[in-house]
Amino acid sequence: MSSTIISPSQPSSLDALFAPQSVAVVGASNDWRRFGGRVLHYLRHAGFGGPLYPVNSVRDEVQGIKAYPNVAAIGKPFDCAILSITAEETVQTLRDCAQAGVKSAIVYGAGFAEVGAEGQARQDEVVAIARASGMRILGPNCMGLVNARAGFVATFASAYEQGLPEPGRIGVVTQSGGYGGYILQHAQLRKLGLGYFVATGNECDVDMGEALDWVARRDDVDILLGYLEGVRSPARLLQALDTARSRNKPVVMMKVGRTPEGRAAAASHTASLTGEDAVYDAIFREYGVYRARTTDELLDVAYALSRGKRPHGPRTAVISISGGVGVQMADFIADAGLQLGEVPAKTQAQLREIVPYCSPHNPIDMTGLVTANHDMLGRTLERVLESDAFDAIILFLGIVGMAPSMAGPICNVLKEVADHHPDRLLLLSVTTPPDLRETYHDAGFLVYEDPSEAVKALAALYRFEQFYRRPAAVAETPPAFAADLVPIGTAPLNEVEAKRIVAACGIRSPNEIVVHSADEAALAAERIGFPVAVKVVSPDILHKTEHGGVALRLADGPAVFDAVRRMADRLGRELPQARIEGYLVSEMVTGGTECILGVAPDPTFGPVVTFGLGGVAVELLRDVAIRLAPVSVAQAHEMMRELRTWPLLAGWRGAPEGDIDAMAQAISALSHLAVSRREDIGEIEVNPVVVRARGQGVVALDAVVQRPARAGHEGNEKEHP
Amino acid sequence: MSSTIISPSQPSSLDALFAPQSVAVVGASNDWRRFGGRVLHYLRHAGFGGPLYPVNSVRDEVQGIKAYPNVAAIGKPFDCAILSITAEETVQTLRDCAQAGVKSAIVYGAGFAEVGAEGQARQDEVVAIARASGMRILGPNCMGLVNARAGFVATFASAYEQGLPEPGRIGVVTQSGGYGGYILQHAQLRKLGLGYFVATGNECDVDMGEALDWVARRDDVDILLGYLEGVRSPARLLQALDTARSRNKPVVMMKVGRTPEGRAAAASHTASLTGEDAVYDAIFREYGVYRARTTDELLDVAYALSRGKRPHGPRTAVISISGGVGVQMADFIADAGLQLGEVPAKTQAQLREIVPYCSPHNPIDMTGLVTANHDMLGRTLERVLESDAFDAIILFLGIVGMAPSMAGPICNVLKEVADHHPDRLLLLSVTTPPDLRETYHDAGFLVYEDPSEAVKALAALYRFEQFYRRPAAVAETPPAFAADLVPIGTAPLNEVEAKRIVAACGIRSPNEIVVHSADEAALAAERIGFPVAVKVVSPDILHKTEHGGVALRLADGPAVFDAVRRMADRLGRELPQARIEGYLVSEMVTGGTECILGVAPDPTFGPVVTFGLGGVAVELLRDVAIRLAPVSVAQAHEMMRELRTWPLLAGWRGAPEGDIDAMAQAISALSHLAVSRREDIGEIEVNPVVVRARGQGVVALDAVVQRPARAGHEGNEKEHP
Repeated sequence: MSSTIISPSQPSSLDALFAPQSVAVVGASNDWRRFGGRVLHYLRHAGFGGPLYPVNSVRDEVQGIKAYPNVAAIGKPFDCAILSITAEETVQTLRDCAQAGVKSAIVYGAGFAEVGAEGQARQDEVVAIARASGMRILGPNCMGLVNARAGFVATFASAYEQGLPEPGRIGVVTQSGGYGGYILQHAQLRKLGLGYFVATGNECDVDMGEALDWVARRDDVDILLGYLEGVRSPARLLQALDTARSRNKPVVMMKVGRTPEGRAAAASHTASLTGEDAVYDAIFREYGVYRARTTDELLDVAYALSRGKRPHGPRTAVISISGGVGVQMADFIADAGLQLGEVPAKTQAQLREIVPYCSPHNPIDMTGLVTANHDMLGRTLERVLESDAFDAIILFLGIVGMAPSMAGPICNVLKEVADHHPDRLLLLSVTTPPDLRETYHDAGFLVYEDPSEAVKALAALYRFEQFYRRPAAVAETPPAFAADLVPIGTAPLNEVEAKRIVAACGIRSPNEIVVHSADEAALAAERIGFPVAVKVVSPDILHKTEHGGVALRLADGPAVFDAVRRMADRLGRELPQARIEGYLVSEMVTGGTECILGVAPDPTFGPVVTFGLGGVAVELLRDVAIRLAPVSVAQAHEMMRELRTWPLLAGWRGAPEGDIDAMAQAISALSHLAVSRREDIGEIEVNPVVVRARGQGVVALDAVVQRPARAGHEGNEKEHP
Repeated sequence: MSSTIISPSQPSSLDALFAPQSVAVVGASNDWRRFGGRVLHYLRHAGFGGPLYPVNSVRDEVQGIKAYPNVAAIGKPFDCAILSITAEETVQTLRDCAQAGVKSAIVYGAGFAEVGAEGQARQDEVVAIARASGMRILGPNCMGLVNARAGFVATFASAYEQGLPEPGRIGVVTQSGGYGGYILQHAQLRKLGLGYFVATGNECDVDMGEALDWVARRDDVDILLGYLEGVRSPARLLQALDTARSRNKPVVMMKVGRTPEGRAAAASHTASLTGEDAVYDAIFREYGVYRARTTDELLDVAYALSRGKRPHGPRTAVISISGGVGVQMADFIADAGLQLGEVPAKTQAQLREIVPYCSPHNPIDMTGLVTANHDMLGRTLERVLESDAFDAIILFLGIVGMAPSMAGPICNVLKEVADHHPDRLLLLSVTTPPDLRETYHDAGFLVYEDPSEAVKALAALYRFEQFYRRPAAVAETPPAFAADLVPIGTAPLNEVEAKRIVAACGIRSPNEIVVHSADEAALAAERIGFPVAVKVVSPDILHKTEHGGVALRLADGPAVFDAVRRMADRLGRELPQARIEGYLVSEMVTGGTECILGVAPDPTFGPVVTFGLGGVAVELLRDVAIRLAPVSVAQAHEMMRELRTWPLLAGWRGAPEGDIDAMAQAISALSHLAVSRREDIGEIEVNPVVVRARGQGVVALDAVVQRPARAGHEGNEKEHP
C-alpha cells in the first residue's frame, strides 16, 4: 500500500494542505469579483488564525494586509500556497514554492489536462515538481477547500458571498468544482453545517480517495458526502471507504455516469475511466455507502444523519391529519422497506379518547381536528411515544405550517412532548416557510416538506443502522483453489483444461471422455451410459452452439456417431482455421438448477465475480449478484441470497434444496484463483454450472478460461509515489 | 351505460352543482374560523355573480348580507345549497332542499359512512333523498369544490386564506379532502392556475369518475389532475379517462394504495375496494394517464403541461455551466428514456468560438465563464437553437439565480433569445428565490430547481406527445372463440373440457388420448409415439404436480404402465375424495417457448388478461403484461412486446421466431371469451402454452377453466340510478 495512506496515529503530508498554519495567496486582489480577491476576503473574515501572505506583483498591500511581490520575497517557509493565477504563471510559481520549502499548494487555474495535449504537458510539469519536492498539490483546475473550524476558507465558491459557513460535522469531497459550489450553496440554504469541503479538480496529486480518507479520520467529522465521476486509484478509494466503515461514519455518495450516456459524458469530462456501474453498486453495498441519485436525496439523507439518531428497527408510526396522505405514506413506507408497526390496543383506545372519530390504526389519522386543538396533537404524540411500539414516528401536518397563528402554538406543544423523549426519533412532514422550518427543527424534529422525503430519509437511517449492527465478518481461510493448475503464459486453454481448473475450485465435471473420431465417440458413450452429450473441443471456438458444435441427449451409439460426423463436416466448412482437438462425450446431467458463474476484470477495479441463475434470468432480466474479487464463502452466500431467483436455489415448490454450501465454496475459490493468478487469467466463465441437491455438489457443464486481454492487467491504478 | 354519463352536447345534471347560478350557504357564519364563515367569505370576494343566500337560524344578516332562518324561507328555488352544519342537521336540511326544488348540494359535514353503522344509515337517508328528488349531492364529508372562473369558491380549504385562486386551465379532482387542501396550497405556492377543484369525499352520489368526466368536458380546461384511493364505478372512471383521451387532455393521476400496506390503509380509510395495483398501471397506460407517485411529481408535470408545448422527439440538448452536472444530467436523460442528441459539427465550431475551452458535445459544458459573460450565454443558446438538432433544450445555471446582480441580466439575455424562438421548448434548472423563478418563467422557460426534475418533466411531456401521436386503433372483428363451448352452470370443468374450450380460441392441444387404466395408457402411448406424458384427469385436482399426478418423458410402454399405477396409488392415498376421471396420455411437445396466459377477475374492474413467459420470469421476476379484457389482437401484440423476455419470442440467438401472430389471436380470443361468458367463467389459465415457430401455432400443455367464485361476478360496479 502506498505511503500516502495514513494510519490514525500518524500525521499526514495532507495536514499542511487541509489544516495549514500559514498561508500565502498568490494572485491576491482587492477586487471581490476576482478569485484571488474573494479567497483572501473569505480567509480574512473566517477567522483563520495563522499568518496570511498576499502575493501581488504590483501592490505593497492587498485588502489592507502587507503584500509580497513573489513567494520568495515572503522570506520564510509556510504551509500552503493558494494559487489564483494563470496556468502559465502557475508552473513557475510552484517551482518557487518548492524552492522556498512550501509544503502544499492549491491550484485554481484551468488550462491543464482538461484542455488537451499542451495542458497535459503543463500538468505533467506540475506533477514532476510535486514529486521532486514532496509538496502536496490540490488541483489544478479546482475550486479549493474549506476547513471551517480552522477558518481556512480556501475556495472562491460564490456560495459564501452571503455569509461564511457555520462549522458542522459533515465533510464533503467532490471531484467537480461546479457541482461542489452547488452543494455548498444548497447546504447553506438548508443550514447544514459543513466541517470540511474539498474539490479535487484535475487530481494531479491529491485525489478523491486520499482526500476522503483524510477527512474520514477527523474526530470532528461524523458524516461524509462524496461526488464521484471516475476513480484514479481504486486502492485509495477503497481505503477511504474502509476508514469510514471502521469508524461507523456514514458515507453518502453521488456517483455519476450511472448510464452508458452518463459514462460517455464523464469520460469526456474527466478523462478518467469509469467501470460498469453495477460494480460501484456492489462496492457501495459492501462498504455500507448510501448512493444518492439527486442533490435533494444527498442532502436529505445528510440532514437526517446530522441529528445523530438512528432507528433501532423498521417499525414506523405515521400520525397524519389527512387519511389520504396516510395512505400515500403507507405506500412510501412499503417502497422504502420500512414497516408500519401495529398500534397496541391500549394506545388505540387512548387515541379514540382524544378524537372519537380518529382512525387509530397505523397510519393513524387524527383528522384535521387536531390542527385546531393543539393539545390533542400533543397528547396523540405522547400516547404513541409511550406505547413504545415504534422505532420512529413521522408526523404529517400538511399546510398548517403556513399559518403562523397555528404553526407557533403547535410547535410549542410538539417541543414539550419531544423534550420528554430526547432519545426518540421524530420526523415531521410540513409545508412551511424556511424560518418556521428551523423552529420545528429546533423543537426536536427532522423536518421535511413532502412525506416521501421524510420516509426516504428514515429508511436511509435505518439502512445505516442495519449496516453498523451486522455481525463483524469472521476471518476465514480461503477454500482450496490449486492456483498452480493454470499454466503460465498466453496459450489459449480449451474446455478440458478449463474444466480441470474449475474442478480444483470444487466444481466437478460430468463423467466425460475426450475422443478423436465418431467411432471412438460411440464407444465412449457406451461406457458412460446413454443419453450423452457431445461437444467439440477447440481453444479457438468460444461459441460452440452457434456453429453446431454441441449435440445433446443422444440416445444411442448410432446417434452419437452421426452427431460427430455432422459436427466435423459443418465446423470444417464454417471455421476451417479452428484447431479441432477432439470431441467431448459427456453424461447428460439432469436435475438441479443451471447457474452462471463468472470472473471478469472491471477496467477500474480489476477482477469482479458475477453469479446468477442461467438463461433468461441473467441475460434478459439481469438478475445477477456482483462483488469485487476475492469474495469469502460468507459473501458468496450473500450473493446467492441477493438474487430474486434465490428461491429456486433454496428449494422452490417442493423441489429439493440446492447444494448452496458447495456453490458458495466454489464461488469463493474461483474468485481467489482469479485474483491470485490475474497475470495469466483474464476471464473465467462457468456456464452453465448446475447446482444439484444438497450433498450432491455443483457440476460445470461448460467452462471457459480466457487469457488476459493485456498481460498483467491491474486496473486503472496510478499510485502516488 | 348510466344516464349520468353526459354527451358533449347535452347539459348535465352536474351543471347546477359545478356551475350554479344561485347559491345558499346553510350554516353561514360571521366567524372566519368556522367553515360556514370561511366559505361565505370566499364566495363574497371571489366574484360569484349570482344571488347568495346565507342561512342562519338566529341572525338576520351574516357578513353584511340578508340571511334566512332556513332553506324554505328563501322562498324561491336555487341551484346549489352548501351545507356547513352537523350530520344530524344535514339530513333534515336536505329534505327541505328537495322540497324547495334545490338542484344540488355540497355537504361538508362528517359523521356519515366513514364512522360506522350509524353514520352509514344516515348516509343511506341522504342517498334516498337524492334519488327521490334528482338532487345531485357532493359529499358528505367533503371539502367542496371550486369553479374559479365563475367565482364559485365553495370550499373551506384554508389554502385560500392568503389569497383567492387565479383561474387557470388545470382541473383537479380528488377523493381526499385533506390531500385536496394540500394540493390547493402547493398549487398556490407554485402559482399554478386552477380552473376547477372538486373534492368528492364520501361519494354518496357524485364520484371521482363522474366529476372528472364533467371537468374533462370543459373547454376552459386543458390539464386534469386526479387523486384516487378506490373506485366506486369503474365504468364512470373509464368514461372520464376516455373523454380526456378523446380530447387530447393530459391526465396526471396519483393513485395511492400502490402497495399491500397502502391498500390496507386505503380500504380502512375509504371503505372502497382497490384491485391489484398492476391493473391500474395497465389502465393508465391504455388511456395515456401519467401516474405520479409524489406531490412534487404531480405538480412538476402539471406545471410542464401548463406551457402548452410538447417536444416532437426525444432529442435533448443539455447546456451546463458545470461539466459534473452535465454528466449527472446525461444519466437523468438516459433514466427518463430521452436522448442526448448530437451537436452538429458546425454548431460545435460556433460554440468553440464563444468559449474556446468549452466542451461542445452534448451535454454541452460552457464552463462558469458564461455566467460572468452573459452575452456568451445568449449566443450559446441561440446557436444551439439555430442548429435545429434538438426537440428541447435544458439549461443548467446552478446557483447564479441566487445573486440578483447576475440573475437579472442573465434573464434579459435569455428572454431575448427565447423571444426569437417562441415555439421552442426551453427548460431551465436554476436555484433561485421564488420571485426570480417567476421572472425566468416569464422569460419563456419552464423553471425547475434540480436538473432531475426538469428532465423528468420533459420526459412526461414527451410521453404525452408520443401517446397523442400514436395511430388510432383500427376497428377489428374479434377472433373466433366459440362461446357456446362453455357449459352454462357451476359444474367444474376438467382438463379435457378446458383444453377443448381453449382450442376453440386457437390454442391447440397436444396429440393426446384419455384412458382409464395402465394397460390402456401403454397402448395409447404406442399410438401417439414415444416419449409421452401422462397426467391424471380430475375436476377436483388443480395442482397435479404437487400430488404426483404428472409424469413426463416416458420412453416406452412399461414406463407408461408403471407411471399410471404409481399415480393411482398415490392419489388414492393422498386425495381419496378426488374423482379420477381417467388419465391423459399426450405427445411430449418439444421446442418452442413456454408461456402463461390467464384471465382472472379483478375485484374492481372485472376480467383481466395476464401474459408472460413461463416459469421464473413470471413467478419470481414478475415479467408480465396485463390488460383489462377484452383485448384486441393489436393490443395482444403490444402485450408481448412489453415483456422484458420478448426477445425469446422474437427469435433469440438464432432460435426461430415464435408464432406471435397465432399467440396474439389466441390472447384476444380468450379475453373475449372470458368477457362474453363471465357468468360461467371465473378464471382461465393456460400454463404452459407453448409458442412454436412461426406457422406452427401455439399449444396448450395444460389448461384450467374455473367457475366464478360467485356466479355473475361483475366487478364492484355501483351505478348511479
